[in-house]
Amino acid sequence: MREGYVYSHGGNATYESGNESILDLSANINPLGMPDGVKSAIIRDIQNCGRYPDSFSGKLREKIALFENVTPDWVFCSNGASDIIFRLPRAVQAKKIMIAAPTFSDYERSASSYGSKIIRYQLFEADGFSLDDDFVESVKNAKPDLVYVCNPNNPTGRLMESYLIGKLLDCCLEMGAWVAVDECFLDFSEKACDYTSKVFFGNHPNLIVIKAFTKLFAMPGIRLGYALCADEALMGRLYLHGAEWSVSNLAQVAGMAALEGAGDYIRQTVQYVSAERTVMEKTLAHLGYKVFKSAANYTFIKSPYPSDLREGLDAKGIRIRSCGNYHGLDNRYYRTAVSTRKNNEMFLAAVKEITN
Amino acid sequence: MREGYVYSHGGNATYESGNESILDLSANINPLGMPDGVKSAIIRDIQNCGRYPDSFSGKLREKIALFENVTPDWVFCSNGASDIIFRLPRAVQAKKIMIAAPTFSDYERSASSYGSKIIRYQLFEADGFSLDDDFVESVKNAKPDLVYVCNPNNPTGRLMESYLIGKLLDCCLEMGAWVAVDECFLDFSEKACDYTSKVFFGNHPNLIVIKAFTKLFAMPGIRLGYALCADEALMGRLYLHGAEWSVSNLAQVAGMAALEGAGDYIRQTVQYVSAERTVMEKTLAHLGYKVFKSAANYTFIKSPYPSDLREGLDAKGIRIRSCGNYHGLDNRYYRTAVSTRKNNEMFLAAVKEITN
Repeated sequence: MREGYVYSHGGNATYESGNESILDLSANINPLGMPDGVKSAIIRDIQNCGRYPDSFSGKLREKIALFENVTPDWVFCSNGASDIIFRLPRAVQAKKIMIAAPTFSDYERSASSYGSKIIRYQLFEADGFSLDDDFVESVKNAKPDLVYVCNPNNPTGRLMESYLIGKLLDCCLEMGAWVAVDECFLDFSEKACDYTSKVFFGNHPNLIVIKAFTKLFAMPGIRLGYALCADEALMGRLYLHGAEWSVSNLAQVAGMAALEGAGDYIRQTVQYVSAERTVMEKTLAHLGYKVFKSAANYTFIKSPYPSDLREGLDAKGIRIRSCGNYHGLDNRYYRTAVSTRKNNEMFLAAVKEITN
Repeated sequence: MREGYVYSHGGNATYESGNESILDLSANINPLGMPDGVKSAIIRDIQNCGRYPDSFSGKLREKIALFENVTPDWVFCSNGASDIIFRLPRAVQAKKIMIAAPTFSDYERSASSYGSKIIRYQLFEADGFSLDDDFVESVKNAKPDLVYVCNPNNPTGRLMESYLIGKLLDCCLEMGAWVAVDECFLDFSEKACDYTSKVFFGNHPNLIVIKAFTKLFAMPGIRLGYALCADEALMGRLYLHGAEWSVSNLAQVAGMAALEGAGDYIRQTVQYVSAERTVMEKTLAHLGYKVFKSAANYTFIKSPYPSDLREGLDAKGIRIRSCGNYHGLDNRYYRTAVSTRKNNEMFLAAVKEITN
């Protein structure tokens, strides 16, 4: 099996390299680590694993509903956000899917799996990879069934303005199209409240917000994501178009434990990530890299140097994400996680050595 | 959301009833419980959950390969068997899928999700719900792209003869069709070695064997299944047509721990289940129920009485699987797990009370 050809994400450094001690900055995981309580919740629950999980994650959905300030009927839990992204095209029968490239590759992979036509709206460096009204115009013209917005975008870290999402939602509602806003990285931003699409649920049953415990609560190994949507019929179809019992017992209790005291944990996270990201972005700019200001827990940069930064760092036991396989980017672009102070210092010191 | 309409399996008794102490015999889980070592393996691994899982379950695949006596490249790990069943129609682009009904409902649900045409070959009580050469003839005539065989069948517990599977595989190989043999319950049988389709891998790249840790190792709450297939290109497509990182870190280490000493565990399981099943089948026959001899860890019976056995048992805090929603069956048919001696005695005593 040629495993390397199948997926194109970060986060596999340890397995690819066989090196347990590699510093993996290619995945963007909360540097504060898993919240207290997750570990003991899992240990307590192992004895219940002789029982099938609740297919509808009833208790967890109630906790998420409180956290997100929606009703439990608007919450769908999944085996990571990727699980939702694979159910969605089938659930909405999306013959045509529009994305703004570069962005997270699973939107396209799942669209291809379903057989949807993919329309790419190209983002340009000259515009700072930002979206504006022209995007909504293009959506109007292209008439897709489903539009993906990644907010902040992966890998650029750029936010889409709330008024623009509102416009997009209005336009799509009129056309009978769905809008999926992937907010997996939004809670790392100081401005999450001003940018979340959740404010549009009231008038937009065509809005699906995708979120995950993976990055925010530093538990990618447990697999837990969720979707929010005010259209309960769609929620039913999400259940239909994928495996049953997709959220394990352990993931359900881990999620509930993570949400205890989530307010404080997220405040600390935002503060920590923001301070670290500022240092990283300043240092990288100082070293000559072009920095695109990010709202997420990663930095996005372009190298002016001929040598390959990823290869250089690999030789020093540090893995970052080369963005060469994103549409519209090439090997000069890199994404790096904002990690712990110590890891970030190691990373910056290594970049300094390579660059000087 | 009308959750009740979505799925139609057993195993949800606790969540449906809200009663933690209900005796759930509607799911068929190994009465010996999770193997030693699984719990401690999970506890040890929680600290690694800040890292994404290996998308290709490399280490686990090696262990499964040894256990199944195949190469690791022939193993695909999944979020339960249901995850494979949802990837398969897409991976083989199955326009037409043939099943022998009654059988496990997910084959049809996933076929519908993909948009395949479903052809049902009806099994009849008069034949003991068994398959014979006529099935292969019907497959030849129907020309499906994919045929599902559940061996032993769920809910009937009946085995399909090995020579017949060989004939089916030959016929399908010639037609360019795939055969998926679901052996999730086969290792509960004394005759697993004589009935497993694995012997056909050498000459049949069109064979996919589906298995799971769920029932055999009593860990449905952890979610772990796998497929075996000698066609490595198909394995690659299984990865493509579903969520990435679908097997959690915890499931990967749990699976590896379960396979340590699996030989002894399975021998004990077969012995225990066989003895208990014999008692249950004899007692139920004695009480007037028609018993279809099962090779799995469940009994399959038909009631001659007008009252609803499931409802009667529910009132006593015991949940069995009414088979009324299987194609070709009705509310007189029931499937009951072979559980621990104590649980089986409770069940039989309750049936006795209801029946007398």
